[in-house]
Amino acid sequence: MIISEMTKEACEDFLSSKNFGHLACLNGDRPYVLPIHYVFKGGLVYSFAMPGSKIDHMRVNPNVCLQLEEITSDQDWLSVVLQGRYQELPDTEQWRTERMYAWSALQQRPNWWEPGAYDARRHEIGDQPSHPVFYRIQAESISGKRAEPN
Amino acid sequence: MIISEMTKEACEDFLSSKNFGHLACLNGDRPYVLPIHYVFKGGLVYSFAMPGSKIDHMRVNPNVCLQLEEITSDQDWLSVVLQGRYQELPDTEQWRTERMYAWSALQQRPNWWEPGAYDARRHEIGDQPSHPVFYRIQAESISGKRAEPN
Repeated sequence: MIISEMTKEACEDFLSSKNFGHLACLNGDRPYVLPIHYVFKGGLVYSFAMPGSKIDHMRVNPNVCLQLEEITSDQDWLSVVLQGRYQELPDTEQWRTERMYAWSALQQRPNWWEPGAYDARRHEIGDQPSHPVFYRIQAESISGKRAEPN
Repeated sequence: MIISEMTKEACEDFLSSKNFGHLACLNGDRPYVLPIHYVFKGGLVYSFAMPGSKIDHMRVNPNVCLQLEEITSDQDWLSVVLQGRYQELPDTEQWRTERMYAWSALQQRPNWWEPGAYDARRHEIGDQPSHPVFYRIQAESISGKRAEPN
């Protein structure tokens, strides 16, 4: 097996070709990681979540890490890591265009809304109507490794 | 879709049935996440890695988070999160039994050694022989959610 560093362009192509990865954030000095669906366009990661502890954590410390991999076999895989900063896209005039862009890009995935829809329903039942939080991640570094059989 | 909390027992059964997940650790106030192979036995996660930045980070801050999921469809999935502390299993008399236990459990996976073997070879070529670092994670909390179609 030969492991090589991927170019930034190859990493970005891989990020663009996928829409599922694992996002790590911080809760104080404790790490937290969860799977997310995202869209990568124009050098930015777009995603959304219902309000909750994950969003609270990223508002306090915007440092995040998105990692995704494709494993064909133990000797044939690639893994890309994007480190960057969380930036919320609030429902205000200033952010309307960017927010609509995120919504438009994300909703192209089949059933993209399902988990959010559940949470929204639950919040409504509890008389606590809630709205999704859209956000983007500005990349500060992107790197990747590719393994190929000898 | 109905989302329910999993019992601790169901979470542990799921952890035992899998050997691949995503581990988050901290580099200062920045999160880092990477895929790992592991074995979960007796309430402990066992894994190993070649010396490097990940190991360095966990030695400084042993707080880690392991997450794994199984996604059958957008409405049928489960996700388990284990938060705990990194604990190294050094090659000393005191830790020999535990270290051998980890090695024995981990090497039951086919090709489990491949990435480490590559790194070991590279280190040897560079006249810097290196050995894998075995570690375990002591769980402080385990939780999980299961989604099922209505």
